[in-house]
Formats: sequence, structure tokens, C-alpha cells
Amino acid sequence: MPQNYTNLSLSEALAQIAEAVNAELDHLLPLPDGPESRVVDAMRYSALDGGKRLRPFLVMQSSYLFNVSKSSALRVAAAIEMVHCYSLIHDDLPCMDNDDLRRGRPTCHRQFDEETALLAGDALLTKSFEVLAAEATHSDPAVRCELVWELAHASGSAGMVGGQMVDLRAAQFAMDVPAITRLQQMKTGRLFDFSCVAGAILAKAPHQQRQALKNYAHDMGLAFQIADDLLDVEGDAATVGKQTGKDADAGKATFISLLGVERARAQADMLAEQAIRHLDSFDEKADLLRATAKFVVNRRS
Amino acid sequence: MPQNYTNLSLSEALAQIAEAVNAELDHLLPLPDGPESRVVDAMRYSALDGGKRLRPFLVMQSSYLFNVSKSSALRVAAAIEMVHCYSLIHDDLPCMDNDDLRRGRPTCHRQFDEETALLAGDALLTKSFEVLAAEATHSDPAVRCELVWELAHASGSAGMVGGQMVDLRAAQFAMDVPAITRLQQMKTGRLFDFSCVAGAILAKAPHQQRQALKNYAHDMGLAFQIADDLLDVEGDAATVGKQTGKDADAGKATFISLLGVERARAQADMLAEQAIRHLDSFDEKADLLRATAKFVVNRRS
Repeated sequence: MPQNYTNLSLSEALAQIAEAVNAELDHLLPLPDGPESRVVDAMRYSALDGGKRLRPFLVMQSSYLFNVSKSSALRVAAAIEMVHCYSLIHDDLPCMDNDDLRRGRPTCHRQFDEETALLAGDALLTKSFEVLAAEATHSDPAVRCELVWELAHASGSAGMVGGQMVDLRAAQFAMDVPAITRLQQMKTGRLFDFSCVAGAILAKAPHQQRQALKNYAHDMGLAFQIADDLLDVEGDAATVGKQTGKDADAGKATFISLLGVERARAQADMLAEQAIRHLDSFDEKADLLRATAKFVVNRRS
Repeated sequence: MPQNYTNLSLSEALAQIAEAVNAELDHLLPLPDGPESRVVDAMRYSALDGGKRLRPFLVMQSSYLFNVSKSSALRVAAAIEMVHCYSLIHDDLPCMDNDDLRRGRPTCHRQFDEETALLAGDALLTKSFEVLAAEATHSDPAVRCELVWELAHASGSAGMVGGQMVDLRAAQFAMDVPAITRLQQMKTGRLFDFSCVAGAILAKAPHQQRQALKNYAHDMGLAFQIADDLLDVEGDAATVGKQTGKDADAGKATFISLLGVERARAQADMLAEQAIRHLDSFDEKADLLRATAKFVVNRRS
């Protein structure tokens, strides 16, 4: 069944997709009978707790451009969200950020315990590849392999995990704007790239369209991160749903500390505009992606 | 290039394969330039440190039965070893077993730090799927997808991670022999299954041969685990290369505490014999797999 977002506002489409992704995650993470159910409980606690579902939204929208079937797109959307949620669980652990609060609820290791949270993260990461590799995701195994390879590459030491490592060591290095940009591209950008390119992979779209989506993701993702830094400085915990002001407290260089609030905001707006221009070759089906680029720089949480 | 083990003893073949797998892991885990190099350093520290390489050995031997190319088999062997090493890194963390020693060297979080060890484990797990999904692993993407799916299923909440969860909760449950058997099959058995079936998957071998290898792995893996419990009771840390007597100290039910040393040893021997009988349909190319079943119950470390 194809997707249809005609006449939906961005917030309506976000809500609709968040609901569909929740249902898919619920379906993909059934609770088993044995004592191992505790780890699946923890996986479900962290994966089904809401959030903006921005990465799944990007998968669904990039798939919509090419009329990819909803069932295929939803599986990829669920897989990327599993990877995102695993990274949050591990990021929140005492040896990392030691966070108690995530999306306004106790973090996984506070709700369960450290060892369960560690295993739940491991199992979510593992499950994402199981989902992508399964026949239900796409009839062509070459497409499934490409999804697995791209997601693994985006998530591993050359992508998200590498970015987390750089982030942990950032205090030891003189981080200038190019260094922070590279850090953020690894830490959060690569998963955005994957999400935006996923539709093109599922549709076996030509290289040029794939590249356009990658360029869009690149600029939109960076705008998103600068906006995140702005929220960290300006937001309050009740609205943002997590602890704020942490980067400043940790003395970490951010886009804001390097550029100042005004120049950072201008940079985010410029990147959002640039992201939108990368979509020029797409018709009105890309309108919600265009709206997304504006949304990420204007959001309040 | 095909493999050839004619006239090699088990220990010669183990050594040869361990060397080849080390070279493959070295090749698959190049050190990058940026500050993220630290996590790759830690991945290499834990993945290249030796060990018996039993799982890679099983992949190579099951591939040998079907004349699978050495380069394909080596990539799968390296992938399974990455998963094994990730599980050891996370298992050793303070919130899990809190081990200082692994294979006679400091554990990853003692050599680096907890956050680096956490990320190194995550990245090794991720990399294993990247390796399997890449074209170099097999020309047929359907085969690569099957490898990804099987490894993910064996490693996740229904397999290894689920088994670790059960193990953590074992003190809360009345663990009898069937419960311990299930625990061990999840925690270590599934990866042995994958290793032994990998050759059949790579060769697209018929179901019957695949099932024979699965049955072999099942019995051999359980024999291996009982022998491990025996070593934990009888071995000393210098020979075994890790802390011993831990299960007894933790008051955990094991095959030994439930069956006694003598019955446990008889059970392991019986399982090894049974494992060998599952290989009856294979010719002398399966001789090293037969020898392996004997080896795992007689090893001293």
C-alpha cells in the first residue's frame, strides 16, 4: 500500500508516522515467555516511549518520493529508530553521560538497571540488522544488503560510534568549527543521511536523486544539531524533556560557544534554506521534507 | 582459493586458522586518522588478542566441507569473532562481571576506560554486519542476507543477549538442568550453531546437510559449556587465563553443581560422541570437526 500525505500538515504527518512506527516497533519486539523477557521489556521501554521519530519520518518521506510500499518503508523506519534508541540507552549510562532523565522519563538504566540497559542497547542494535535482512523488508536481497551495509557503516566506528568517541575526547583537542562539524556529522549526521537515502535505496533510484537526498540530509542534519545546541543553551528541562545546559557546564566547545548565539542561529537558517534547495528536482511530494528543514531550526524541543 | 587441511593435526589447523583470522581482522579494522582512532584501537586490542578462535575455526571447517572459497569463509569467520569479542568486552564491564583479566591481559575497560570499552563493543557488533553485507563476502546477496539474519538472530534477545539476561537472573529462578541447558544454548550455543552452519549457507547446501551441522553444533556446544564449567571448578587462573571459581563463589547453579563432577564429565563425553555421529554423512573432510568435539571436552584451558 502506498503512502499518501496530501493535505497533511507537518505536525499531522509527524504524528501519523510516529503512530505507525510505534505499531511497527510493537510488532517487531514481542515479549517472550522466558526470563529473557526482562531485556525485551527494557528494549520496549526505550523504543516505544515516543520521541519525535524524526529519523523514521525521514525514511517514510524519502520512500514516499518514490512510491515505495508502506510496509517496506516502515520496517526500515523501525530499524533506524532501534539504532537511535540503542545509542540513547548507551549514551545515558553512568560511564557515559550518566543521565537520569530521557524524554521526561527515567532513563533505561534508572528504570531497570545498568546491566539490563547495556544488554537492551546491544539487542536493539542487533535487531535492527535482523529486521533489514529479512525478506519482508524488500523482495530484492541486493537492496536489503545495501540497507544493512549502509546502516552499519553509518552507525559504527566510522559513523555514530566514532562520533561519540570524538565527543568524549573533545576536551583534549582544540575543537574549531570544522572539527565540531565533523564530529556532529559522524555522531548524528550519518543516521540522518541513511534515513534520507533509505527511500532511494528501497526504490533503486538513480544516483543523482540519491545524491540530492544525501545533500539535503547533510545540511538539514547540521541545522538540526546547531538548533539542538541552541536549545541546550536556551531551553529549559521541562520543555526539552532532558537535562539542559550540560554542554556549557562540561566546558565543551559547541557551535554556540564558537560562533555565538546569533551567528549560530543564522548558520542554522542558512543550512535549512540550502537543504531545501537540494530538493529542487523533486515535485510537491517533497514538500514535507522541505517543511522539515524549516521545522528543525524553529523547534522548541 | 580452496582450503586444504590434509594431514594437518587439529592443533596445527587451529593455529593456521587463528593466524589467517588475525590477518583478516587486522585488514578489516584499519586504524583511522581522527580522534575516533581510540575506539578502533580498543576494537583491535580486544579482537586481535588471540584466544582459541574456535568459532572462526568452525566457520572455516564447515566451509571446507563444501569447498567454499577461503576469502568468503574468512570474512564470515572474522564477523563471528567480532561478535564474540564484543560480547566479551561488554561481559567484562563493571556493571556485568567486572573482570580485570581476559586471556591473561587487562580487560578492555581496564586497558582503556569504561566508555571506550562500551563503544568498542558496540562498534565491533556493528562492523560484523557491515562485513557480512559487503559484496566481498559472497557474490549472491541472498546468501549475504541469510548470513546477516542468522547472525543477528543468534546474537540478539532470542540468542546470546537473551542468554546473558537469563544468566543475570539465574539466582532468582530455580535453575534445573533443562533451564541451564536452555540458558547455555542461548548464551553460547547459538553462536556455535551459526559458525557450523555458515559453511552450508555459503555453499547453499541442501537442508539435510545444514541440519546435520546444526545438530553437531548443538551437542558440541553443550559439551564445550560443560567442559567450561568443569574448568571453572578445577582449573587455575594461570592456565585458564581468566578468573576461575567464580560461578561457585556467586552461588550460581551450573551443570557441575546440579550433576556433580563425574556425571557432568560423563555427560560432556556422551555429547561429544553424539556430536560426532551427526557428521556420519560427511567424508574425511569432517575429520577435524570430529576431532574438535573430542578436543572441547578434553581441553585444559
